[in-house]
Amino acid sequence: MSNLTIDGRRLWDMLMETAAIGGTPKGGIRRLTLSDEDRRVRDWFRTECEALGCTVHLDTAGNMVAIRPGKDNTRKPIAMGSHLDTQPTGGKFDGVLGVLGGLEVLKTLHHAGFETHAPVALVNWTNEEGARFSPSMVGSAVYAGAYSQAEMDAFKDGDGITQGEALDAIGYRGKDKPGALGFQAYFELHIEQGPILEEEAKTIGIVTGIQGIKWFNVSITARESHAGTTPMPYRRDALAAFAEAATAIRQIALDHAPNGLATIGIVSAHPGSPNIIPGEVRFTLDMRNPSDDELAVMVTKAKIAIAEAAARHFGAHEIKPLQDSPATPFDKTCIAMVRGATEKLGLEAREITSGAGHDAMYVARVCPTSMIFVPCKEGLSHNEAESSTLEDCAHGAQVLLEAVLAYDART
Amino acid sequence: MSNLTIDGRRLWDMLMETAAIGGTPKGGIRRLTLSDEDRRVRDWFRTECEALGCTVHLDTAGNMVAIRPGKDNTRKPIAMGSHLDTQPTGGKFDGVLGVLGGLEVLKTLHHAGFETHAPVALVNWTNEEGARFSPSMVGSAVYAGAYSQAEMDAFKDGDGITQGEALDAIGYRGKDKPGALGFQAYFELHIEQGPILEEEAKTIGIVTGIQGIKWFNVSITARESHAGTTPMPYRRDALAAFAEAATAIRQIALDHAPNGLATIGIVSAHPGSPNIIPGEVRFTLDMRNPSDDELAVMVTKAKIAIAEAAARHFGAHEIKPLQDSPATPFDKTCIAMVRGATEKLGLEAREITSGAGHDAMYVARVCPTSMIFVPCKEGLSHNEAESSTLEDCAHGAQVLLEAVLAYDART
Repeated sequence: MSNLTIDGRRLWDMLMETAAIGGTPKGGIRRLTLSDEDRRVRDWFRTECEALGCTVHLDTAGNMVAIRPGKDNTRKPIAMGSHLDTQPTGGKFDGVLGVLGGLEVLKTLHHAGFETHAPVALVNWTNEEGARFSPSMVGSAVYAGAYSQAEMDAFKDGDGITQGEALDAIGYRGKDKPGALGFQAYFELHIEQGPILEEEAKTIGIVTGIQGIKWFNVSITARESHAGTTPMPYRRDALAAFAEAATAIRQIALDHAPNGLATIGIVSAHPGSPNIIPGEVRFTLDMRNPSDDELAVMVTKAKIAIAEAAARHFGAHEIKPLQDSPATPFDKTCIAMVRGATEKLGLEAREITSGAGHDAMYVARVCPTSMIFVPCKEGLSHNEAESSTLEDCAHGAQVLLEAVLAYDART
Repeated sequence: MSNLTIDGRRLWDMLMETAAIGGTPKGGIRRLTLSDEDRRVRDWFRTECEALGCTVHLDTAGNMVAIRPGKDNTRKPIAMGSHLDTQPTGGKFDGVLGVLGGLEVLKTLHHAGFETHAPVALVNWTNEEGARFSPSMVGSAVYAGAYSQAEMDAFKDGDGITQGEALDAIGYRGKDKPGALGFQAYFELHIEQGPILEEEAKTIGIVTGIQGIKWFNVSITARESHAGTTPMPYRRDALAAFAEAATAIRQIALDHAPNGLATIGIVSAHPGSPNIIPGEVRFTLDMRNPSDDELAVMVTKAKIAIAEAAARHFGAHEIKPLQDSPATPFDKTCIAMVRGATEKLGLEAREITSGAGHDAMYVARVCPTSMIFVPCKEGLSHNEAESSTLEDCAHGAQVLLEAVLAYDART
């Protein structure tokens, strides 16, 4: 272990400086992946890393990997990273903190003249947000082999431009094969994007994994009829069935506290007239749990609740899977390094599951991985008002530094 | 009382003959108000009435009133009527039965050479359906003074054509002032458009009035947040509040059995993404009761249920009135004439409230009124599959004849 200390003010200044690249009047950032703003922040990032004596590698997916040499460069690098692209009306911290926090770690090592055993890497992944080209996290997905380069290149934005064309256009297509540059381990610093740390006055979230997510498209069909001429006992009301199912599904999530989540985000009634009893209601169902087994139980209960509610109103139902992302438990050693750092630093910390997807989810498929969360104001994210503090960002970067050095010390 | 008997087969043949004017491949009718199809059926109607020795009056709203003279033509006519326009995919009975049932009554009187004391009138009201020009029942509304002629003329269809232009275009703008031709009483024969008569094996519904209707636009607002990062206890989920409110509102209607009705026909969640907890849910609420007092109680309970559900999820709510149509109790004497006819004929009958609006609702404002319902298959209406039987239509027309003659006999 070292006595190195990152410079919180220097990190904050980098956050504010780069926030101007695509900065919005409301204090957020619009820096869509592979846009000119993305090119400009990539240029800035490369210049900063090279000034620290790093070599910046570029793979065919546009992922940028800055490598600071260690004493033994035959060892695989210990990596940090996240993403510099943002949502269309994104904030100043989502993704950016992980990259600039890593850059602050490199600066701290550099200015102290500290030599690690293994090389240390810092990654800026391409298109984490998925806002311009869907799906999200595609740079790390290609790195981990979840998509091919050809698949990534073919995805189109709303204007019909392919991701491959956009990558070539900003000049950030490299020659390296994604994933060829293996890592010993990967640590990603990120804002929580939820309310737990702030509510519990914790400084650091020791992220133990990313929860499993299952999405469904559901429809309940019963019988469309006239609101004025159909007595209540004669009704086969799809909306009444939906309302009962929705309440039951919420209760299922509550029964699986504290980790079970269930959300109905979209609902529509058909034919959709004030004086027609809906014959059909369609809705989406998003269920999550860090345990795949527990998630499966929740889904089974939800299916029963939907079937029972439909049957009570003499209706039928259909449940179609829309997305299925298994839980990603992080590496025990990496988690221990993060926990150890919080203990050494005396920071208030708690274990936490990531509710959202991150590049770490894909990277975890190919090397030991964990994440570090810091609080964000009111859990707000994907929003120009997204906010964190200099102090929390600094604590996060310090934990990142300690975790990397601890992992390096054990090798 | 007479021993006149209507000709059920002749009535049925007229129903089938006119169904060809705007007939659809699925056996329904598309005869939008003031369309060329409407002109053709109006031409047919005028010819038929004139062949029976009737004078056909036309008012500025396009309402057609055929008058068969009586012994004393200083008396106001006893009127029958309904409408010949249909929904875009309407059936063969809604409205049409009331006009052609009345025409069958006139034919029966004519062929028997029967002289009534007062004249007998048969009305074809303009634009009952409101499908092309909203609002509905506008011809009878202008007749009753609920809208002015200028207001009626100004309503536009989806192509921007005004109702006045359309009326002029088909050549059915008359010179009479609507309402100038007063009636002693008004009887309207109609299919039930609901399931009660069929379910209870009744032939005739003795309609005692039209229920009160109140429509509201409701919104529940809470807090939009991330489906993956917001634990259940931190949520302020507008959709969870909506689901509880919807179930409670249904229970309120059930508690006001057998007459209370409550329907949520439209619902939407915002911003409307599978992985965002809705920050707002908007919905319509349709509540009905034949008693205005009881309806007011139901509405108060619903408002409390919405407020409580919103509050449980730390949300706010807004309830805006959208439409308010007070209950229309029908005239006791007219109701008695209908009941007497069913008793004389030995028909299975029950008192019933009309769940839907009808021209009789407006006519009741200016003269004693009631309605006669006959069953329709599975309560289906506003649908090409709308169906009734020759026998039920004939019973309805016979009751109409008896009611008119009974009313005439007492004058």
